[in-house]
Amino acid sequence: MHLKAASDAPLSLGTIWRVVKKFSPRRIPPVYYGGVIAIPALLMGEPAVEFSESLSEADFVLNTFSFLVWGALVMWMCAGFTMLESGSVRTKNASMICLKNIGLYSIAGLAFFFIGYNLMYVDVGNFIGSFKLMYGPSSDELALLDGEAGALGGVVDQGYATMSDWFFQMVFVATTASIVSGALAERVRMWPFFIFTLALTAVIYPIVGAWTWGGGWLSQMGFQDFAGSTIVHSTGGWAALAGVMIAGPRLGKFRANGDARPTPPSNVLIVTLGVFILWLGWFGFNGGSQLKLGSAADAVAMSNILVNTNLAAAAGVLVSLAFSRFIFGRMDLIVGLNGAIAGLVSITAGPDITEHYWAIIIGAIGGILCSAGMRLLEKLKLDDVVGAIPAHLIAGIWGTLAVCIVAGGDIVAQLVGILAVGVFVFALSWLIWKALALSPLGIRVTRDVEELGQDAGELGIEAYPEFVLMPDSYEEEEE
Amino acid sequence: MHLKAASDAPLSLGTIWRVVKKFSPRRIPPVYYGGVIAIPALLMGEPAVEFSESLSEADFVLNTFSFLVWGALVMWMCAGFTMLESGSVRTKNASMICLKNIGLYSIAGLAFFFIGYNLMYVDVGNFIGSFKLMYGPSSDELALLDGEAGALGGVVDQGYATMSDWFFQMVFVATTASIVSGALAERVRMWPFFIFTLALTAVIYPIVGAWTWGGGWLSQMGFQDFAGSTIVHSTGGWAALAGVMIAGPRLGKFRANGDARPTPPSNVLIVTLGVFILWLGWFGFNGGSQLKLGSAADAVAMSNILVNTNLAAAAGVLVSLAFSRFIFGRMDLIVGLNGAIAGLVSITAGPDITEHYWAIIIGAIGGILCSAGMRLLEKLKLDDVVGAIPAHLIAGIWGTLAVCIVAGGDIVAQLVGILAVGVFVFALSWLIWKALALSPLGIRVTRDVEELGQDAGELGIEAYPEFVLMPDSYEEEEE
Amino acid sequence: MHLKAASDAPLSLGTIWRVVKKFSPRRIPPVYYGGVIAIPALLMGEPAVEFSESLSEADFVLNTFSFLVWGALVMWMCAGFTMLESGSVRTKNASMICLKNIGLYSIAGLAFFFIGYNLMYVDVGNFIGSFKLMYGPSSDELALLDGEAGALGGVVDQGYATMSDWFFQMVFVATTASIVSGALAERVRMWPFFIFTLALTAVIYPIVGAWTWGGGWLSQMGFQDFAGSTIVHSTGGWAALAGVMIAGPRLGKFRANGDARPTPPSNVLIVTLGVFILWLGWFGFNGGSQLKLGSAADAVAMSNILVNTNLAAAAGVLVSLAFSRFIFGRMDLIVGLNGAIAGLVSITAGPDITEHYWAIIIGAIGGILCSAGMRLLEKLKLDDVVGAIPAHLIAGIWGTLAVCIVAGGDIVAQLVGILAVGVFVFALSWLIWKALALSPLGIRVTRDVEELGQDAGELGIEAYPEFVLMPDSYEEEEE
Repeated sequence: MHLKAASDAPLSLGTIWRVVKKFSPRRIPPVYYGGVIAIPALLMGEPAVEFSESLSEADFVLNTFSFLVWGALVMWMCAGFTMLESGSVRTKNASMICLKNIGLYSIAGLAFFFIGYNLMYVDVGNFIGSFKLMYGPSSDELALLDGEAGALGGVVDQGYATMSDWFFQMVFVATTASIVSGALAERVRMWPFFIFTLALTAVIYPIVGAWTWGGGWLSQMGFQDFAGSTIVHSTGGWAALAGVMIAGPRLGKFRANGDARPTPPSNVLIVTLGVFILWLGWFGFNGGSQLKLGSAADAVAMSNILVNTNLAAAAGVLVSLAFSRFIFGRMDLIVGLNGAIAGLVSITAGPDITEHYWAIIIGAIGGILCSAGMRLLEKLKLDDVVGAIPAHLIAGIWGTLAVCIVAGGDIVAQLVGILAVGVFVFALSWLIWKALALSPLGIRVTRDVEELGQDAGELGIEAYPEFVLMPDSYEEEEE
Repeated sequence: MHLKAASDAPLSLGTIWRVVKKFSPRRIPPVYYGGVIAIPALLMGEPAVEFSESLSEADFVLNTFSFLVWGALVMWMCAGFTMLESGSVRTKNASMICLKNIGLYSIAGLAFFFIGYNLMYVDVGNFIGSFKLMYGPSSDELALLDGEAGALGGVVDQGYATMSDWFFQMVFVATTASIVSGALAERVRMWPFFIFTLALTAVIYPIVGAWTWGGGWLSQMGFQDFAGSTIVHSTGGWAALAGVMIAGPRLGKFRANGDARPTPPSNVLIVTLGVFILWLGWFGFNGGSQLKLGSAADAVAMSNILVNTNLAAAAGVLVSLAFSRFIFGRMDLIVGLNGAIAGLVSITAGPDITEHYWAIIIGAIGGILCSAGMRLLEKLKLDDVVGAIPAHLIAGIWGTLAVCIVAGGDIVAQLVGILAVGVFVFALSWLIWKALALSPLGIRVTRDVEELGQDAGELGIEAYPEFVLMPDSYEEEEE
Repeated sequence: MHLKAASDAPLSLGTIWRVVKKFSPRRIPPVYYGGVIAIPALLMGEPAVEFSESLSEADFVLNTFSFLVWGALVMWMCAGFTMLESGSVRTKNASMICLKNIGLYSIAGLAFFFIGYNLMYVDVGNFIGSFKLMYGPSSDELALLDGEAGALGGVVDQGYATMSDWFFQMVFVATTASIVSGALAERVRMWPFFIFTLALTAVIYPIVGAWTWGGGWLSQMGFQDFAGSTIVHSTGGWAALAGVMIAGPRLGKFRANGDARPTPPSNVLIVTLGVFILWLGWFGFNGGSQLKLGSAADAVAMSNILVNTNLAAAAGVLVSLAFSRFIFGRMDLIVGLNGAIAGLVSITAGPDITEHYWAIIIGAIGGILCSAGMRLLEKLKLDDVVGAIPAHLIAGIWGTLAVCIVAGGDIVAQLVGILAVGVFVFALSWLIWKALALSPLGIRVTRDVEELGQDAGELGIEAYPEFVLMPDSYEEEEE
């Protein structure tokens, strides 16, 4: 049976997969749509195949374990961002990147526990969820742990353990915050960065999430974004863009004639390691976003998702490398590595409903857009240290449109979603960054600290204290 | 159901979870307690919920797979310790750390196979298990693999595959050994270190384990230590402390006036990477210690465990950073990173029965104790290169007490356990280190080798042979 | 039950496990052997234990999830190879290694999607599979995702999701390609390397795979290679050997008198990290190669496999270190790290049917052979930069023989398999490398580029641009 199907497969690839899910919210609470109760997709066992009744506890366990294992891999992406960014900056600022990243992951985890998750997922109306503090296991779960066997039915009906979902959602918000730190590296002070991180992870991202995965107005409109091309990656990208505009470029990044000075990564091995970590973590990011593992249909979908994720990234790498050869006259490793990220971001909106060859095309176009976007930002004199905005924002927009192009859906909903998230996140981020810049705190390190480096000037710990380093010529040339 | 429960959750958080398990040994053999046969918890399907009879094979598979997947993540912690330690030492000793760590993981794996596991888990009376050599699959498992379908029932009744449990326990003993290498870095010779590692992993740790997870006297007394705040982390910490006392501080670590010279990490990125690896691995360390995944109750517990683990670590980071700001006048990245470890160690004794907000508090206190402990050790002129003793021993003691404070249990049993393990491990380790020091081997490298570095002086391979390094001024100042 | 079995275990170790599977192809299509239809082993539920009928969907989910989780770990091995290799080369060539590795993983993924998988697994006769382009989900899977509940039975009968298997097989071909890049580092040009990678992953490896795991002539003969000591590792090793012979040694590697100059790794921490990554990934490599997780027997086998994998690696490390002490007069960390790889490769042919103490012996011998092989290559003036040929080819041959020695099987089939794969891969690789060398492209960088380094000379991006480096004396001495 299998082999027959397998050899048939190349033929069947010509037929576009029907859109299995018209929209794929992370969680649909039972809300009224024009007076009709819409039962949550989860409880309906969509797609239509379920374990038989007697298997529902196994279903629960598998759904939960999927969240935990894939969520752990998504947490690992924070290490990936840390390596990517700390290897990309000049050595004099690398420790600060480490501090910012371990700090932002910690802040995100606590903010999402105290405020964020409830705003995003609990009692969401159209725009925002609950303002209650903290989140925890359901009462049925507590009863079950307490030994009340009668609670089992209620627990199993949940579909998965409450906190396994929380864990999986928490590592997503951390990803959003990670995107910002790279773009703003080498000149934004630590304290305002952490304050912004708190706002982003406690409020901004959760509100975007409430509109979409939480079941709010964008979700109801039919906006589809499977694992977050817009919701996670563009949100991070818009927040970064606002910060980049207000913070301004690094000293000496742009010459008087407008040319951008190249700022090569100080540790290419660590950057490459970071990209491999992100690539690995993305299997959890997209695979876990199936949200279920309790049926054969889920397992099939998750498999297709991982394959599409990998194909899009691979295409992003190769096309970006080719593009760099064509534009710059030589293969540019950094463009290629960023192409992997762009390919991954591009496929993230619809890895479940995209045919495999389309994943390759989507990833390839994402890679080109990212590469071109890196140039565009330089023309605009926007200084994004690691190319986070092209890789996450531009590729994120592309991915959100692409899913609709290749797999069907409401293009208007996609455009409205992209626009609404963009306006909301960019405007709010801009206000926060601006307020921080105008406050006594400021967001920019002093000129002296910037020249000396944030590690020695602000943090008091150098990344590589025993290594003899080249004098950094950027500022000198500027003087 | 789920959503109602979820929005209820903040209310229900106010009620302290009842202690689900009065004590949580890893394995309770069917031993007689005052004449009554206590059926092993595992076979009793505690907590009271089980898969139905027809699901028991799935139960077995899930329990086993949980051990394997989470165990693989715990093995990954060895890479985390290696990076943390090799980035923390001066460049001239970094290769030796790599050698010691790959060596100790190998020694631990073989020692636990030949001797350790049997001492710890097989036929344990009150104090020690079996002296048989080697460990392997059960006879039912061999029969099953051999195609005897009749063996299935016996295998399934085991609850999990014999060697999946061995694998999971083995990576724990390696963790214990990893703790020691960091504290003793930069001056302890390779051979005595390996000999001590052999003793620790083949005998010392297994005996501590027999008393507790193996079902021995401490377990019977009610001592609870879910994933090893005391059993793994304090054991490693006590062994390290004995070694630190006997080996003495590095040349030039303490000035004539008693001040400690700062010894900044030589590669901050690698240290940070190490901490991220450890954080990720800890999900396996604590999550896998649920030991089962065959019921909804297990899945719920495992989810709560991962969340508590993450919250405690995040709190440890932020509170340690704040503490360092308050004490030292600046945020200290290294203190923050160690705070993550301390938070993780602190929650390890009870991540299953601790409410989430308590996990935050426990982790935060762990971070403070660790930060203060780092200062204390310096006052005592104990030279712990990576802060392993504060992070693992002090936080381990705190965690073992904390679980009792927040979730109930017998505080006397906890104190007795902490004390007994401390006295036993410290005394035995002290004797072994002392014997090694007095032997012709010695434990300390010569002054020449220490000045030159262990890499060039003892190992003959430099960590970064092509990089130009700053002259190291510690010894020169000392001269 | 369990504990009784456990304490029995040391006794039962004395009895050699019977060979559970006479040969272990990855997939046996229903082919005619002399007129008799051989039902695929998978569908027969071999070994003889199965979930009951009602559990088959859980079976499907578990099989699939095992492929995905373990496959993700195998993908991670590419990061391991990248770190191992980029840390091993001189700094002036480290970026090129990063580019080659991210590039080869991308090429392998696309080549295996378009051509490779079909050649290897679809409609395989004796020698080769289908020439169709692209691979995808089965028609039943597409129907199921489309909501046709009636398709469930057909899907479940497959045993696992089509693309989960593709994913798992794809990361294997990437491993093969990774082996080549290390051996040929520091002098082979990027373009010819990528062209060879395409040939290897699209054609050479898939044909070897068709003969064996695809069910072709070697499989029918009884050749057994559980996870690819020969099929993956020796294939990579032979391809590397051909390249090494044609490319010739690096400038200055061999002195006029024939002595080999030592070329120490430029970043020992990164090399060590790479080995830990590979060790972790190997749990997925060997564990996932059980191909199933849907029965207790599978779970038991997978557990034994992980334990054997770890024991063999540990033995490889310690014996290699001892060997280096004996031969070179000092413990050589690099030899020890390569010993881990060699131990892992050695056990890969039969981790499922090897008793644990045999795994130790097999890994130990693998470590010695690898260490000796590193010396042998130098005597032969073959310049394998990272020791890939000893670790993968020599240990791969040993492992393929060892499985037969310790667990039974047809030694003739093993020898024929080793020889056939060797002749085929070496000859074809030699022809391709030779053709590339004779083409206008060439395979070797110019002398100027080689002295300057590929990073600056060919790629235009230095690995550590801010660090002051020692002048490299190899070429100068040669001049």
